[in-house]
Amino acid sequence: MTAELIAEVILPALGGDQEAGRLADAAVLSAGGARELALTTDSYVVQPLEFPGGDIGKLAVCGTINDVAVAGARPAGLSVGLIIEEGLEIQTLRRMLESAGRAAAEASVPIVTGDTKVVQRGALDGLMINTAGVGRMLAGADLGFDRIAEGDRIVLSGPLGEHGLAVMGRRKGLSFSSDLKSDCAAIHELAAALVEHLGPALHFMRDPTRGGLAAILAELSSGAGRDLTIDEAAIPVNPSALAAAEILGLDLLTVANEGKLVAVVEAGAGDEAVGILRRYPIAERAADIGQFRARSDDPWPRMLTAVGGRRMIQMPYGEELPRIC
Amino acid sequence: MTAELIAEVILPALGGDQEAGRLADAAVLSAGGARELALTTDSYVVQPLEFPGGDIGKLAVCGTINDVAVAGARPAGLSVGLIIEEGLEIQTLRRMLESAGRAAAEASVPIVTGDTKVVQRGALDGLMINTAGVGRMLAGADLGFDRIAEGDRIVLSGPLGEHGLAVMGRRKGLSFSSDLKSDCAAIHELAAALVEHLGPALHFMRDPTRGGLAAILAELSSGAGRDLTIDEAAIPVNPSALAAAEILGLDLLTVANEGKLVAVVEAGAGDEAVGILRRYPIAERAADIGQFRARSDDPWPRMLTAVGGRRMIQMPYGEELPRIC
Repeated sequence: MTAELIAEVILPALGGDQEAGRLADAAVLSAGGARELALTTDSYVVQPLEFPGGDIGKLAVCGTINDVAVAGARPAGLSVGLIIEEGLEIQTLRRMLESAGRAAAEASVPIVTGDTKVVQRGALDGLMINTAGVGRMLAGADLGFDRIAEGDRIVLSGPLGEHGLAVMGRRKGLSFSSDLKSDCAAIHELAAALVEHLGPALHFMRDPTRGGLAAILAELSSGAGRDLTIDEAAIPVNPSALAAAEILGLDLLTVANEGKLVAVVEAGAGDEAVGILRRYPIAERAADIGQFRARSDDPWPRMLTAVGGRRMIQMPYGEELPRIC
Repeated sequence: MTAELIAEVILPALGGDQEAGRLADAAVLSAGGARELALTTDSYVVQPLEFPGGDIGKLAVCGTINDVAVAGARPAGLSVGLIIEEGLEIQTLRRMLESAGRAAAEASVPIVTGDTKVVQRGALDGLMINTAGVGRMLAGADLGFDRIAEGDRIVLSGPLGEHGLAVMGRRKGLSFSSDLKSDCAAIHELAAALVEHLGPALHFMRDPTRGGLAAILAELSSGAGRDLTIDEAAIPVNPSALAAAEILGLDLLTVANEGKLVAVVEAGAGDEAVGILRRYPIAERAADIGQFRARSDDPWPRMLTAVGGRRMIQMPYGEELPRIC
């Protein structure tokens, strides 16, 4: 319903560069015909504020870095806008912000400016963080739906669902095995390495956050105007995440990630992309999970299931989209 | 108290480039030693959402453009993050967003990306808008507290207090004379003209929003480490704003503006700066209002009053700082 609100009310009203804003998490600004800067923004709300593997501060910083990174840009700076609910404990606030500061320092992306508003006790769940990020386009990055061709490989940097399940588990008071933590991490080094080494063989990047891999595949198929097929057996799995998803009745494909990258590369470049990603600890289980098919007037993503069947992948909605990022 | 929270909890916790973030409304990002980009963010809440001369949509767009502009940068793009309270009427939302879109189009600064969150009915007064803006540094802009020297002139682009009084008047159900409207406007063309024509004779720029001219003068005096004196008789006055301020018991110096510029220029360049500004309809009453004095260990801004007295100008706080932007 938010997507509908955005498409039918917000974008037409705002005017401006709707094409750039509609599908990408970051907008690219050009100067003299050359793509120069990427700009992104997101408002983070999550309950609980702290969860295994992260908290709202780290989440906001990593999420913004990642949105800039998958646009093919090197993040240059972040802004942090805090919306603090009256009554939030200063100690909690301090912990969240220290975590944000640490995440920014580890990623070498400075938080350069900020803003703080305090609102009445009520609807905010304690703290909302609105971040914006700007980055400089990497030389050689030429990414877009129009670059995706038949035979292109779809590469995923690691197992699915850890962020969403860690948050939902904590929220429901479930205690899963201790290795189920949010994957919350900055992926800009992964993205930059793909741009640098693959050059024009890299066609598209995205990070599968809310809506999970399913949402990205639906977006990719629709944006490229092509069917695509992924192979369930090729998708890396964290057994704890799989168990948690089964307990909660969720599909790993639709659960949010916060430190994963999906890359679309030229037909022959799948193995090379996997090799580049596996040099990084957060992507040591990277895998080539599928490919694009022919153009179609009614394009769909499909999955070859582990037991040999076929299944349509749909854009998740409603219950499948808990507010976890 | 927000300033204290920011200085004592938020900045130390976030780490990062505190110097850049502490005093400026926009942070400047350098590349290879050259100042290249300005990044700014702000969260806008205002009640009522619509007021004479503007609304929250126009306010968010102009405010963000202005923060980038006074850093000496040409605004290149804006992001708009909407935080919508459940129950806000779609017609109201549409009207605010159309206003934001119109303001962006008039200023030729595109809204390139956005984000929407819906929160429970409660504390938000209907709608909060978080905007971020990025701009490219203008060639020849060299602005900073360290550039301010004894004898430097302080130039103000027009009469004070129209925004704050229009909002507070509407909030209290007062109907002032019809020419009291918010001055909400983008001032980036004014700022760019000063940079272009004055070059190194332009030493500092700021827009006097919340806290009014008083807050800017306190910041300037403290940042430059110099006393400064302004001449009350030289400050342009809107008689309707003055009457409204008297009715409400407010000091025009402390009331918010949303379309004004304060520039600090070299001793001999005051008249030229006024002349440049007066070419623009929104600055046709620009005036040279005062000057910087010698260095001081305890610097203060002072005002020569119209009746020949002298008065200290203090950073406004508490009751003097209603939430109107």
